[in-house]
Amino acid sequence: MSHDSDVERTEGDLRNTGMALKHERTWDYELDRIVEAVEERSAKKVGLQFPEGLKRRAGRVADDLRELLPADTNVLISGQPCYGACDLDTYMMRRTDVFVHFGHSPMKESEKIIYVPLFSNVDVTPIMEESLAELSDPDEQEAVGLVTTAQHMNKFDEMRSWLEDRGYAVETRRGDERLTHEGQVLGCNYASADVDADQILYVGGGKFHPLGLAMEHPEKKVIIADPVNNVVKIADTEKFMKQRYGAVHRAMGSEEWGVIFCTKIGQGRWDVAEEIVEENDDAYLLTMDEVTPDRLTNFGFDAYVNTGCPRITTDDGPQFKQPMLTPGEYEIAIGEKPLESLSFDTFHGTW
Amino acid sequence: MSHDSDVERTEGDLRNTGMALKHERTWDYELDRIVEAVEERSAKKVGLQFPEGLKRRAGRVADDLRELLPADTNVLISGQPCYGACDLDTYMMRRTDVFVHFGHSPMKESEKIIYVPLFSNVDVTPIMEESLAELSDPDEQEAVGLVTTAQHMNKFDEMRSWLEDRGYAVETRRGDERLTHEGQVLGCNYASADVDADQILYVGGGKFHPLGLAMEHPEKKVIIADPVNNVVKIADTEKFMKQRYGAVHRAMGSEEWGVIFCTKIGQGRWDVAEEIVEENDDAYLLTMDEVTPDRLTNFGFDAYVNTGCPRITTDDGPQFKQPMLTPGEYEIAIGEKPLESLSFDTFHGTW
Repeated sequence: MSHDSDVERTEGDLRNTGMALKHERTWDYELDRIVEAVEERSAKKVGLQFPEGLKRRAGRVADDLRELLPADTNVLISGQPCYGACDLDTYMMRRTDVFVHFGHSPMKESEKIIYVPLFSNVDVTPIMEESLAELSDPDEQEAVGLVTTAQHMNKFDEMRSWLEDRGYAVETRRGDERLTHEGQVLGCNYASADVDADQILYVGGGKFHPLGLAMEHPEKKVIIADPVNNVVKIADTEKFMKQRYGAVHRAMGSEEWGVIFCTKIGQGRWDVAEEIVEENDDAYLLTMDEVTPDRLTNFGFDAYVNTGCPRITTDDGPQFKQPMLTPGEYEIAIGEKPLESLSFDTFHGTW
Repeated sequence: MSHDSDVERTEGDLRNTGMALKHERTWDYELDRIVEAVEERSAKKVGLQFPEGLKRRAGRVADDLRELLPADTNVLISGQPCYGACDLDTYMMRRTDVFVHFGHSPMKESEKIIYVPLFSNVDVTPIMEESLAELSDPDEQEAVGLVTTAQHMNKFDEMRSWLEDRGYAVETRRGDERLTHEGQVLGCNYASADVDADQILYVGGGKFHPLGLAMEHPEKKVIIADPVNNVVKIADTEKFMKQRYGAVHRAMGSEEWGVIFCTKIGQGRWDVAEEIVEENDDAYLLTMDEVTPDRLTNFGFDAYVNTGCPRITTDDGPQFKQPMLTPGEYEIAIGEKPLESLSFDTFHGTW
């Protein structure tokens, strides 16, 4: 059975992965590369990890691999939650001979891991054409910053040329070492937008990335060209800011704080977590991989500070019974910093 | 602040831990033993892991330890789910100098781990007195098997003497190597009830343990003396069996199966999982630690076989959208075994 034959036009809840199936598409799972690695290493156990939005394809990819691989090869599929590059299934990585992580850029390099990027094949030019209405005329303002997400990275040169053909001076940079590609942004890192331009064109899906981008670069106009949902918008931080101020206010006066240290690769800010606990006798250090409402409820602290993924704090925050703050918001809530200092929580460097 | 001063009369949802706070009680956290281990090993990081039902006490225990330990000691609290001995937080274990697991018997022995049993101080004799109405008269049937759970283990000798004083011949055994104590049962192992007696007295809370006990030993009468909920019952497997037959019937005819291999210590039945996948081209091996409805939903398989904790399959099963079966039930569903062979899934040995 081929994994290409039964692509459905269903639209799953892919908000968190940025991988929508709205457009019919064929992912390139790079099976040849996997088969080659299995042969080279005489691998007996092959582990596959898919983002949530593509887990439904796991059975088909396993079928294809079983056909291509020696009969005594075990194909394992990770059932751990996977929303991003940080969600590397390290248990599976340690216990398989070849471990394939689909859909995200590398967070940790290892000979054993094969990263299959699963680039989107959505055409980005129609939505870029629409975005011109929001971009300044190149005669008035030539410079435009250009950023995108991992799964549109394959079209980055095309995006740049397209803008240059229309008279723009395209400003890009690789960002810091947390980012793999020129012009790439993560939900927790916008260093690649730190360019000499007052307007930034973000080509990609989701609301989390452009919001963080606009928060991190408040002096710039952030134009969202979303080729997946086919919409052009200006990133508006106001509603988001209100939500965050609300959480900070609810957390003020909390007696006891749970301080979450996330154990996932790429999320461990030990110094940040330790400092909070050291300076506050009513703060307690909690370690966990997945941060969910259920896991916090039983502790019964009044409020939580999440030193792990900011997306959990800001996107999922409303699902939690108690207020959950970023480390910066915590400082505001306990009165160490003024309300005006509220900003988006970002990560730099790698772990 | 003492952890003894503010015990509340609240009744939490402690079904899964068997640790109800219905009776006011003082747990002995054995802080001296922890402090001693920290001093011996000059530990800088101390990790604490509590069962769900006692997570609310974590802050108070941390307070007490912070007072007793050198100021530069970091106290970490595990936020991972913890329902039993298998839920050892191995991440925390590897990254702390002293790791304390509260409330369960050892599943894995290590110099670094301190197991604090947290024995219940509930008086067991009143409920044993009541259970006499269900036990045979010792003149007619002398032999009675006696089993209990980890947290009533401290009263085991008292239970035995109490029965002997009333003329019974108390039959006990240690069970297999999965069990730490004479007379102890786990939710997945009832080998200690394999004694020469037609009636078994189970002293303890919960419904899961006695149900498994009755399923595993259908020829014996299983009397439940529950000192926590203060009730005497006869284990009735009928309703449970109906539920399981229902799940098996719903799973029959499923095209694609997800076969869950649980990565927790003590739950990895690799051979069982591998065999199913090898013999069924439409079965796919999924590896995960926590088995939750959310994690399975995205895969979209028609039915699941859980080779991990039987409690998840049988207790939590109804929460899952698709039928989830034990390995034995799977064999019935695919027609390899007759319906009558349905039995409780148990674990033997250690991993």
